[in-house]
Amino acid sequence: MARWKPDARGRLEQAALDLYSEQGFDQVTVAEIAARAGLTERTFYRYFADKREVLFWGQAALRDIFVSAIAEIADPVALLDTVAAALEAACPILELRREFAQRRHALIEAHPGLQERELMKISALAEAIADALHRKNIPDPAAEIAAETGIAIFKIAYKRWIEQGTKSGLQQLLRDSFDELKSMAAGE
Amino acid sequence: MARWKPDARGRLEQAALDLYSEQGFDQVTVAEIAARAGLTERTFYRYFADKREVLFWGQAALRDIFVSAIAEIADPVALLDTVAAALEAACPILELRREFAQRRHALIEAHPGLQERELMKISALAEAIADALHRKNIPDPAAEIAAETGIAIFKIAYKRWIEQGTKSGLQQLLRDSFDELKSMAAGE
Repeated sequence: MARWKPDARGRLEQAALDLYSEQGFDQVTVAEIAARAGLTERTFYRYFADKREVLFWGQAALRDIFVSAIAEIADPVALLDTVAAALEAACPILELRREFAQRRHALIEAHPGLQERELMKISALAEAIADALHRKNIPDPAAEIAAETGIAIFKIAYKRWIEQGTKSGLQQLLRDSFDELKSMAAGE
Repeated sequence: MARWKPDARGRLEQAALDLYSEQGFDQVTVAEIAARAGLTERTFYRYFADKREVLFWGQAALRDIFVSAIAEIADPVALLDTVAAALEAACPILELRREFAQRRHALIEAHPGLQERELMKISALAEAIADALHRKNIPDPAAEIAAETGIAIFKIAYKRWIEQGTKSGLQQLLRDSFDELKSMAAGE
C-alpha cells in the first residue's frame, strides 16, 4: 500500500532541477527524473506533458492570474496602471518560489533551446493580457501597447529580482520599473 | 563566360521565398533554392549561413542601424526619444523592402520554429540597443527599460505596417505608437 506520496509535483520538480543542473537539460530522461523522485514515469506524465514543461508549466498559472486580475478591474481607464496591477497580482506566489525561479533561470540562460521556449511563453503572456484588455473593450493598438510594454517591464523587474543579491521584493522592483518608464515617457 | 550574375543575393532570396511559400519551409533544400535562382549552392553559402538565414540576415543590418544611430546622438538625455530616433533610422530601408517583409512575415507566422527564432533575434536587438546606451553612459535599469520598451513598440508598429491594408509608413506608425505610450504613461 502507501503508494500515495505527498506533493508529487514538488518532488518531481526538485528532482528534475537537480538532474538538469548536474547533467545538463538535454542529457536527462523522464525515467531518471521519476526515479530520483521515487515516483513512476506515469506519475510524471500526470503532472507534466514532457521534461521541458517542468520549467514552463508555471506560465499558465501566471497567465490565469494576469487575465483574472484584468477581468476584475472595474474601470480599466489608466491602461498602464491596469496592466501593472495585473502583473503585481502574481508577485505573492512568485515570492514563494524565488529559489525555484533562480535555479530555473540559470538553466534557461545556459540553453538556447530553452531560451527560445521562454521567449515564446513570454510573448504568449503579452497576447493573453492584450486579449483580456480587448474583453474590457480596450481597442488596439492601445491594448497591445499596454500589454507588450507591461510584459517588457515585467521581464526586466523579474530578471533583476532573480539576479540581484539583495532582497528587494518583485513587487517593489516592478513599481520602480514602471515609475522609471513613466518619468522616461514624460521626458524627464 | 558570363558566369557572373547581378544581384545574386536578391535572386536567392526571391527563389527561397517562392519555394518556402509553395512547399513549406521545412521541405525546401538549399540545392533547390540555388537551382531556382540559376546559381550554385556554393554561391548560396557565400551569402547565407543556412536556409533560415535568408529570412533573418536583415536583423544584423537593423542592429547596425540602431547601434550607430544611438552612437551618433550627442546628448541622449530623453531616453525614449533617443531610442525612437534609432528605430526611425531603419524605416527608409525597411520601406524599400515592404513586400519582402510581408511575405517573410506570413512564412514566420505559419511556423513555430521560425517564430521562436524571430523572438530570439528581436530580443537580441533589444540587448544591442541597451548596450549602445551603456556606451553612452546610460546605466541600467534605465537603458534596459528604454531598449525593451522601444523594441516592444517597434514590434507593434512593424506588425501593423505589415498587416494593414492601408499605406501608412512605418515611421508614422512608430511615432503614433510612441505617442500613444507617452499619453498612456501620463495616465491620459
